Amino acid sequence: MDTIKIQLEDGDIPENWYNIASDFKTPMLPPLHPGTGEPVGPEALAPLFPMALIQQEVSQERWIEIPDEVRQVLAQWRPSPLYRARRLEKALDTPARIYYKWEGVSPSGSHKPNTAVAQAFYNREEGIKRITTETGAGQWGTALSYACQLFELECQVYMVRISFGQKPYRKAVIETYGGNVVPSPSELTEAGRKILADDPDSPGSLGIAISEAVEDAAMREDTHYALGSVLNHVLLHQTVIGLEAEKQLERAGESLPDVVVGCFGGGSNFAGFAFPFLRHKITGDQHAMRVVACEPASCPTLTKGEYRYDFGDAIGMTPLMPMHTLGHNFVPAKIHAGGLRYHGAAPLVSHALREGDIEARAYHQIECFDAGVEFARTEGIVPAPEANHVVKGAIDEALRCKESGESKCIAFNLCGHGHFDMAAYQAYFAGQLERHEFTDEMLRENMQALSELPTV
Amino acid sequence: MDTIKIQLEDGDIPENWYNIASDFKTPMLPPLHPGTGEPVGPEALAPLFPMALIQQEVSQERWIEIPDEVRQVLAQWRPSPLYRARRLEKALDTPARIYYKWEGVSPSGSHKPNTAVAQAFYNREEGIKRITTETGAGQWGTALSYACQLFELECQVYMVRISFGQKPYRKAVIETYGGNVVPSPSELTEAGRKILADDPDSPGSLGIAISEAVEDAAMREDTHYALGSVLNHVLLHQTVIGLEAEKQLERAGESLPDVVVGCFGGGSNFAGFAFPFLRHKITGDQHAMRVVACEPASCPTLTKGEYRYDFGDAIGMTPLMPMHTLGHNFVPAKIHAGGLRYHGAAPLVSHALREGDIEARAYHQIECFDAGVEFARTEGIVPAPEANHVVKGAIDEALRCKESGESKCIAFNLCGHGHFDMAAYQAYFAGQLERHEFTDEMLRENMQALSELPTV
Repeated sequence: MDTIKIQLEDGDIPENWYNIASDFKTPMLPPLHPGTGEPVGPEALAPLFPMALIQQEVSQERWIEIPDEVRQVLAQWRPSPLYRARRLEKALDTPARIYYKWEGVSPSGSHKPNTAVAQAFYNREEGIKRITTETGAGQWGTALSYACQLFELECQVYMVRISFGQKPYRKAVIETYGGNVVPSPSELTEAGRKILADDPDSPGSLGIAISEAVEDAAMREDTHYALGSVLNHVLLHQTVIGLEAEKQLERAGESLPDVVVGCFGGGSNFAGFAFPFLRHKITGDQHAMRVVACEPASCPTLTKGEYRYDFGDAIGMTPLMPMHTLGHNFVPAKIHAGGLRYHGAAPLVSHALREGDIEARAYHQIECFDAGVEFARTEGIVPAPEANHVVKGAIDEALRCKESGESKCIAFNLCGHGHFDMAAYQAYFAGQLERHEFTDEMLRENMQALSELPTV
Repeated sequence: MDTIKIQLEDGDIPENWYNIASDFKTPMLPPLHPGTGEPVGPEALAPLFPMALIQQEVSQERWIEIPDEVRQVLAQWRPSPLYRARRLEKALDTPARIYYKWEGVSPSGSHKPNTAVAQAFYNREEGIKRITTETGAGQWGTALSYACQLFELECQVYMVRISFGQKPYRKAVIETYGGNVVPSPSELTEAGRKILADDPDSPGSLGIAISEAVEDAAMREDTHYALGSVLNHVLLHQTVIGLEAEKQLERAGESLPDVVVGCFGGGSNFAGFAFPFLRHKITGDQHAMRVVACEPASCPTLTKGEYRYDFGDAIGMTPLMPMHTLGHNFVPAKIHAGGLRYHGAAPLVSHALREGDIEARAYHQIECFDAGVEFARTEGIVPAPEANHVVKGAIDEALRCKESGESKCIAFNLCGHGHFDMAAYQAYFAGQLERHEFTDEMLRENMQALSELPTV
């Protein structure tokens, strides 16, 4: 038989997370307090996060040990398989060798539990009883609800109201895992009540839901907040993906990939896969390696956003973070890849882009679904709408190889299955997907709200 | 770390399917032609199935070789993992050791591709261009559509009309894999047109959809029919599950399980897991091993059905099969475990029950969802509503062990994830699940339609 699946053993689950901050040639800019403009110290974050995570957030250690109890939970589905996409290669008639890491085997069907489990663990260790969070499409709320259940924590999810209505099944999954979920804006927080007073029919947004979850956590002694992407410690926890993939490619007889591709929203699945490879480019001799982030053209944070200080949420409750941003007021178009609808980019990924270590590309949703359906019909797996962006990016790279006749090694991360997202495929087949443009004028308008903020 | 996952290598994918018919102490009764009452020969099935499958249907060989090309496709997700349910054991406070085989890692999320791939392969080998089938809840239609795509066959799915309306996402998945799906009864067949003429609002049934798919296949030279359960060759293809599990239990340091549990609808996932273990009971010295089939109380084929000759479809187009049946006219209550709503039982399973080799138990859906939610909250996986029946059965066995203080080894097959079925969980949490009774009077009525048929 041809090898298509490269599997590792339990013992191959990484013992350490990889912290790319330790390897950047120039240091990261610190987050700032919006009032004073001064760097935010660890103590300012203590009402929201356990100290272990805050230390990870600012750590300069290259390797950070994964607690045994976390590895024990991850061992249920990790190491996840790496596949050689032989049937896709054949259909594309490309000389490229395409590999994809498959994170859809996790209990919730995406990469999100990798960090949810770690975050729940550290909170339990610090005696926390309850965690709040926001969720858009629902993958993150599901994963955190799952992880909280395992560590006997309560979980309160604020779900963007319009998604809450469109995706009632997400509520059912979150409740199956024992979590509570309310549509946001809600009556539970001051932020929510204020928005509802102005607009009782507010559809909500990820930024508003973050504001509510942060307020809820800040108000209660026994409660912390958890974020599913963007922050340094979240990206850190996802590096198990790339570290495993590196070992798997070696076992497949490859050295390092020529092209690494990931889909990009907040940055955690992209970074989790790409950073362990990127370290060989920024600290080693892999200068020719290309690392490509694929984002939605309707929310082109990396390709059109400005690199500057901005808030992580819509209302301006978080510290200011140095990142590529479309402006915290920006409400992205309602594309089906809900997990990629975020105005900012993880500071670590923004830094890598600014340093020239990675490149970025934006795709419209219809071409991404074209790619996703081609993938399903060859590789048999129906990707989540978010993952369709990386499939499109990988296919583009493979077709370039076909033109040039080069047999490159292309590796990407397929971050989740689309079984919760079939309404999106239904709309695609019915020809109902829209092409949303992001214009320079939209950017100009969004940036006006940032004119008072400190610059990088 | 405690071992929770027992993984095998590609080389451990079975090279042969196990045919239990060769090991029964008394021979199986043959299927009969409904007109003549005579045994049906292979040639009568040739318009519907490729000869390789017909030979498997009647084979008395103990081991039947799995073609390399089929194993190559299965290798994408096989061997599937076997898990030790340590967190469930702890929650139940049971001395039992509970293991479950996890088939939800397949591309379509259930065990169905194991046979879909084999059936598509043999049809392609015989030059067939198109396959028809029926589907109820949609898992089988999805799996066959996936398999047909890989072997470049057209796939035509007749989906029970009421399910088609309730589960529009199933249509989207089937189309993503390139299959065609129509609600049944349809205008495409004489059987469908006849039923629509009598009742334009007919909700359809699995029996009607089978009639349509069979008629479609019989009419066209290039077209065959495929069934997702019940028939001998379908059960045969699923034995990869149990054969792998046997090897995995050995690796976990267990000998054979004391109790084997499976959920039961048509019989393929039950048999695929249980038959390889059962062979040690019927041919070896494992006389104390218990093998338990768990079925819905609203469709209690094994626990209340009569063992006799009956049709496989609603209209009476198939050969007569010797099986436990509730009567081919019976339309089961609309429970959420759509995959278990079938009036009959696979002849091989019926035979094993009659011989006293297995036992059967019926559960109501609410107690099954209770069990499924407990499983999700401990093991992290949300089971399909069908699979909740086996979870309930396994938990019952584990609680018996707690009472008796016995540390038994309980093994079961978790045949699929519930990510397509969250509407059912939603109804469960909303307290909207009904308790459907099956009465002796219903059985008497159903059996009247069978009074003219030959007896066993």
